[in-house]
Amino acid sequence: MQESVLVEREGMVAQVVLNRPERLNALDLAAWRRLGALMEELDGDRDLRCIIMRGVDSRAFAAGADISAFARERADVAQARIYGRTVHAAMEAVMRCCHPVVAAIEGVCVGGGLELACACDLRIAGRSARFGVPIKKLGLTMAYGELKVLMDLVGPANAAEILLEGRIFGAERAREMGLLNRIVEDGGALAEARATAERITEGAPLVARWHKKFIRRLLDPTPLTEEEREEGFASLGTADYRRGVEAFLAKRRPEFRGD
Amino acid sequence: MQESVLVEREGMVAQVVLNRPERLNALDLAAWRRLGALMEELDGDRDLRCIIMRGVDSRAFAAGADISAFARERADVAQARIYGRTVHAAMEAVMRCCHPVVAAIEGVCVGGGLELACACDLRIAGRSARFGVPIKKLGLTMAYGELKVLMDLVGPANAAEILLEGRIFGAERAREMGLLNRIVEDGGALAEARATAERITEGAPLVARWHKKFIRRLLDPTPLTEEEREEGFASLGTADYRRGVEAFLAKRRPEFRGD
Amino acid sequence: MQESVLVEREGMVAQVVLNRPERLNALDLAAWRRLGALMEELDGDRDLRCIIMRGVDSRAFAAGADISAFARERADVAQARIYGRTVHAAMEAVMRCCHPVVAAIEGVCVGGGLELACACDLRIAGRSARFGVPIKKLGLTMAYGELKVLMDLVGPANAAEILLEGRIFGAERAREMGLLNRIVEDGGALAEARATAERITEGAPLVARWHKKFIRRLLDPTPLTEEEREEGFASLGTADYRRGVEAFLAKRRPEFRGD
Repeated sequence: MQESVLVEREGMVAQVVLNRPERLNALDLAAWRRLGALMEELDGDRDLRCIIMRGVDSRAFAAGADISAFARERADVAQARIYGRTVHAAMEAVMRCCHPVVAAIEGVCVGGGLELACACDLRIAGRSARFGVPIKKLGLTMAYGELKVLMDLVGPANAAEILLEGRIFGAERAREMGLLNRIVEDGGALAEARATAERITEGAPLVARWHKKFIRRLLDPTPLTEEEREEGFASLGTADYRRGVEAFLAKRRPEFRGD
Repeated sequence: MQESVLVEREGMVAQVVLNRPERLNALDLAAWRRLGALMEELDGDRDLRCIIMRGVDSRAFAAGADISAFARERADVAQARIYGRTVHAAMEAVMRCCHPVVAAIEGVCVGGGLELACACDLRIAGRSARFGVPIKKLGLTMAYGELKVLMDLVGPANAAEILLEGRIFGAERAREMGLLNRIVEDGGALAEARATAERITEGAPLVARWHKKFIRRLLDPTPLTEEEREEGFASLGTADYRRGVEAFLAKRRPEFRGD
Repeated sequence: MQESVLVEREGMVAQVVLNRPERLNALDLAAWRRLGALMEELDGDRDLRCIIMRGVDSRAFAAGADISAFARERADVAQARIYGRTVHAAMEAVMRCCHPVVAAIEGVCVGGGLELACACDLRIAGRSARFGVPIKKLGLTMAYGELKVLMDLVGPANAAEILLEGRIFGAERAREMGLLNRIVEDGGALAEARATAERITEGAPLVARWHKKFIRRLLDPTPLTEEEREEGFASLGTADYRRGVEAFLAKRRPEFRGD
C-alpha cells in the first residue's frame, strides 16, 4: 500500500508530499497522524534548513478532509473530538517544527487542505489554484484552533466571507485576502518554492528558526516572559553571527554552519 | 412619525433599513436605541438565517451621528458616556446577534455609519460609496469599543490614516484597507447582499451562527475555556451534519433545518 | 562634528532628520540614543501638532543599523542587550510621543531603518524606495519588541517573508504588505508628508493625540481598565469639542486651540 504522505530529501531541503492522488490528496485520520509524525521527525533533523509541502501532482495541494471516511471516523461528537485533536496536532507539528515550511500550491486547496496550507510559514500558488472552505454545506464548523490559524492570515471579515458564503475562489482573491505570499504561473509553484527554500537556506539557520519561533509566539497574546525576551538577543552569541558580520564587512558571501 | 429604523422580512432574510433620509440616515440617540432593540429582537427569531443592513435610499448607508442633536444629547462628558454606551450597545447587538449581518452600502458611509458598517460581518459597497471618520473636525474621538471594531478590520496604520487625516475616501481605498469584502456597480449593493444572503441561507444555519460566534470570540484575546473549545466540535452532533454528509456523498443539495 | 539626528521646526510641525549621509543614515548606538532623547523632547512640546521623520537626502530614509560599528557596540550578548534596549527605547519614544509621526521615505529603508519607519504612525514613500530586513545574512534576529511593531502592520505571513527570505523589495510590494499608507512619485514623499501634516494640524490636537494613544493601546492585548475606557469620552469635555460642533453647524472651518 502506498503511503499517504511521503518525504523526499534534497540536500538541506525536505519535501513533504501529500500523496493520495485518487482523493485529490484529501487526508483521512491515518494520513493526518502520519503527517504529524513526519513533521516531528523532520523537526528533530538539524541538518535540514527548510521544508516544502506540496501535493503529489498539479491537480491538488489537498482537497481537505476525506468526507467518504466521515461515517467511520467522524460520526459523532466523541469521534469529532479525537479527529479534531489529530488534525490540530498535525497542524501544530507544522507550526512548531523548527524549520520554515513553504507550501507549494497547485490545483485544489480547500477545507482541511486550506487549513494545512495556513499552518505553513509561506504560501506560493499557481495562478489557477482554487481555494475555499465550503463546510457550511456539510453542516460542519471549523474548530477554534484552525480558525485562529486562518484568521491570523486573513482577519475577521475575510474569514467570515470564506466560512459564511462558503464559495470556492481563485488565487488572486486568495492573495488579496492575505492567504498567499505570491502567485506564479501554473505548474511553477514548486520551482518558486525551491527558489524560496534556497533563499532561506542561504541565511543563518538558527536565525530562520528563531524568526519562525518568534513570529509564531507573537500570535499568542500571552505576555512574553523575561526569558523569552532575552532569546531575542541570543543570536548575537552565535558563531554564525560573527561569520555573518565578518562576511558583510569583507563583502563576501557568508557560509553559515548553524552554530 | 416615521420610524428611524425599519425591518422588512423576506423569507429567511430580514432587512434592517436605516430610515432618516432627511439626515442621510444619521442616527440620533433614539435611533441607536431602536436599532439595538431591533437587533435583539431579530436575534431571538430563529427562523431567520441572515440579516441585510442598508440605508433607505442610494444616497447613504448612514452619515454617522446626527450632529445637529449633539447640543441636546452629547453636550458634556456625562451625556457622552450615556450616548457612547447606547451606540456601543447597538453595535454590540449587531455583533452579538446570532445571524450573519451583511451591510449593503451605497452613498455616504461616514462617522457612526462607518462604525456601524464595521460591526456587520460582511460589507458590500457600490463603486461610488464614500467612507471616512472626519471627527477630528468636531474635536471628538472615537471610543475604545468602536475603535477596536475598526482596527480589527483595517489595522493600526489605516486606522491612524482614517482618524488622524480625517479624509473622505472612495470604495477602492476602503477595500484596500480591509473595510470592504467587495465592490459592485452603483446601485448593485443590495442585489449582491441578497445573493450573499442566499449563499448564507443555503448553508446549515447553526454552522453560520457558530462561525459568526467563533470569529467574534477570537477577536477577544482572553484565552478560550475548555468548554468553548468543545463547542468547536458541537456541529458534529447535529442532525444537519448528518444531512450534510449524506447529501454530499449522494451528490445532491442538502436541505438544512437548523437542528 | 555634525549631529546624527537633526530637528527642524516649521510652525506646528517638526521635522526629525536622520543625518548620517555618509552611511545612508545608518544609525549607530549614539544616534539611536540621540533620536530617543529628541523624541522625548518633542513629546514635551505641546505647541507641536505633528512630526515628520525623514532622511537627510533622497538616497535613504535609513539603511538600518551601522554594521561597521557592530564589532565595537554589538559584539556579544551582553552588548546586544544594551544595544537592543537602546534601539527599543528610541522606537518606544517615537510610538509614545504624543504627536502623530509621519515617515517620509525616499530611497533605502532597510533593517533598523524599516523598524524605525514601522514605529511611526503613517508611512509615505517615493515609488523607487527600497525595503527589507536582510539580517539573515548577518546571523542576527530581530528582537521581540521590534518584531511586534512589524507584525502589527504586515501580519505573520509577510513578516515571515521579510525575515526568512531576506530580500529587498519595492514600494508597491511594501504597500501590499501593509507597510505603506501611500506611494508618491520619487522625491515627493516629503511634500506629501507635509500635506498630511497639514491635514493633521487642521484637526483638534488633543483628538489627534488621543487617537494615536488609543490606537497604540489597542495593540496591547491587556484588557482596558475602566479609567482607560472613560478616556474615550474625555474629548467631549474639551473647549475644542464645543468649537468643533459650533463650527460644523455654522458651516465654517473650526479653529482649534488644544484645550
